[in-house]
Amino acid sequence: MLTDWMQLAVTRAKKAGVATYQNPQVGAVLVKDGQVLAQGYHHYFGGDHAEVDVLRQVTSEQAKDATLVVTLEPCSHYGKTPPCCERIVQAGIRKVVIGQLDPHPVVGGKGCQYLLDHDVAVVTGCLAKEVRALNPHYNHFYTHQRPWVTLKTAMSLDGKTNAAGDARTLISNQASYADSQRLRSQFQAILIGERTLTIDDPQLTVRLLAMTHPPVRLIVLNTSAVARDRRILQETTGETWLLCRQASASDASLQALPNVEVRIGDWTPAAISELCLQHGWQSLLVEGGAHLQADFVAANLIDEWVSYIAPTMIGGAGLPAVMGAVPTEQLAFEQPTLKWLGTDLRLRAVRKGVE
Amino acid sequence: MLTDWMQLAVTRAKKAGVATYQNPQVGAVLVKDGQVLAQGYHHYFGGDHAEVDVLRQVTSEQAKDATLVVTLEPCSHYGKTPPCCERIVQAGIRKVVIGQLDPHPVVGGKGCQYLLDHDVAVVTGCLAKEVRALNPHYNHFYTHQRPWVTLKTAMSLDGKTNAAGDARTLISNQASYADSQRLRSQFQAILIGERTLTIDDPQLTVRLLAMTHPPVRLIVLNTSAVARDRRILQETTGETWLLCRQASASDASLQALPNVEVRIGDWTPAAISELCLQHGWQSLLVEGGAHLQADFVAANLIDEWVSYIAPTMIGGAGLPAVMGAVPTEQLAFEQPTLKWLGTDLRLRAVRKGVE
Repeated sequence: MLTDWMQLAVTRAKKAGVATYQNPQVGAVLVKDGQVLAQGYHHYFGGDHAEVDVLRQVTSEQAKDATLVVTLEPCSHYGKTPPCCERIVQAGIRKVVIGQLDPHPVVGGKGCQYLLDHDVAVVTGCLAKEVRALNPHYNHFYTHQRPWVTLKTAMSLDGKTNAAGDARTLISNQASYADSQRLRSQFQAILIGERTLTIDDPQLTVRLLAMTHPPVRLIVLNTSAVARDRRILQETTGETWLLCRQASASDASLQALPNVEVRIGDWTPAAISELCLQHGWQSLLVEGGAHLQADFVAANLIDEWVSYIAPTMIGGAGLPAVMGAVPTEQLAFEQPTLKWLGTDLRLRAVRKGVE
Repeated sequence: MLTDWMQLAVTRAKKAGVATYQNPQVGAVLVKDGQVLAQGYHHYFGGDHAEVDVLRQVTSEQAKDATLVVTLEPCSHYGKTPPCCERIVQAGIRKVVIGQLDPHPVVGGKGCQYLLDHDVAVVTGCLAKEVRALNPHYNHFYTHQRPWVTLKTAMSLDGKTNAAGDARTLISNQASYADSQRLRSQFQAILIGERTLTIDDPQLTVRLLAMTHPPVRLIVLNTSAVARDRRILQETTGETWLLCRQASASDASLQALPNVEVRIGDWTPAAISELCLQHGWQSLLVEGGAHLQADFVAANLIDEWVSYIAPTMIGGAGLPAVMGAVPTEQLAFEQPTLKWLGTDLRLRAVRKGVE
């Protein structure tokens, strides 16, 4: 029964999709005498937590002595909302069943402790795997203090992303394009290199979905001058960060643009990862090019690989998906998962042992 | 009913597997009064044709006025055995249902004509697609007067076959290894380049299967000297052809070895294809390396791509599966078919429009 209720909570949690942004997806179910009284979830970033969403639906009489089944440990601190633990104790809940302890250092374990200190029974670890799968990026970010990094590429059967030369080669079909937009929407930051900027001139927006918090766009450049007159700076609904290796005369004028940041530094993968940590960007999608991908592989800062494979062959002079810096060893991944996108194939593999 | 019987004939045909070698797989069913009297197939290269295998199982009384359902047009010439058409007419068969006309120039259409000339009713094109799929290499060879060419590679998620340097990188798992042996058994010739010979020192044998006609091993080399002391020359159950760009002092001694041929020439993909045509090798498996694969792609002499993809990442300095010569355009393939081999993935795609 507990696992059935937790499954219900997991299902509710997913309804929010990416709207919870830097908050985790959380679902909750209130149960009494074997009956489900209410189901709720965290709807959007800044909105009520799942526990509050559930308690709102019942009378104080109903809530008293009930069991709360919730996917994530209830919070015990004043964040955007008052702590859920206080509400739970005030409501007279007798038992709380928790799917996963919160890896967030401000919460982790303290919510449980608060409940136990106030004579609420606590059960943890229910349906742990399904619950953890709700928030892989959030869990990873707070467990390892660095963003979840996914490398994404669109390639031919022979592993090439572009034909020889400076023109952009179209490889993927429309279904892959739409899917890669959905993928992009699941990340809080997107990264490209200078060559991708100049050859593709992308907007790096999530055009097919309306997003309250679009991913921050990061571009590694030699100098900011290259970014002038690019389409990415005309699109101001999200932030664009120009990560430049050298200062340039154009820095000040670009910095003055709305939603544009210019930063000078030695932008190694570790430095970019650290930037994400500082700003709370829990997930980073590295879209290319080949050298940037190779830098992340060599730095051992890669948690997932997604490739869109089109039934085409580019041949001998094509640009490989990953080219440049050399890792010290092969990196092992879990068995890939596959999805057909028309005649294209999406192959997705998570780094072995990553969580 | 006709298609049911033809399906039965197709199923029988497959029982021979690769034992038919340069002959096609053929199945036959003898039917009378709606009842199947006998089922047969071509068992092995040089053995009885399917029609004979079927007629052997019945009395002359039974055969008279019966219908013969056969996947391939009966032969009308004296080859390794007397022509089946004569046998069919002598047996008093009233009707022959044929899956596919024989693309072999000596037979094509003549078998049908012989039967019609002798007052046997003929139906053609029954279950054409399934029947043609029995012998894709045979059909291709005689239709286009060149071998079916499959490029095979074992690669990482990022499309690399080897790490940097001269050592061999192990990528695939045991299940992929076994599957690639089965793949190899389906080809009449296997081709590698000089670097693959020197780095991998392969035997290019089908070790997991006993084969009466193992594939001929072709190696493109600058000079034959490189091949001395390689394992491939110690393995003499099949032929090894050293395709050298330049003559060398070692040519004569190597040519004197059992089952070794040395040929000097400009071994372009077209020249290799022509060699296969001359010797009746209907199918060619190009196993690598990267430059040889690129040559075949650029020459537009590729009918199929097979890659074994392992859940690993080799990274920036790895050798791409295809590298070198540039094709004039992207080549289009049909939607790939997939097979899991443990945690490895086999991806197989046929050139668009190839038959």
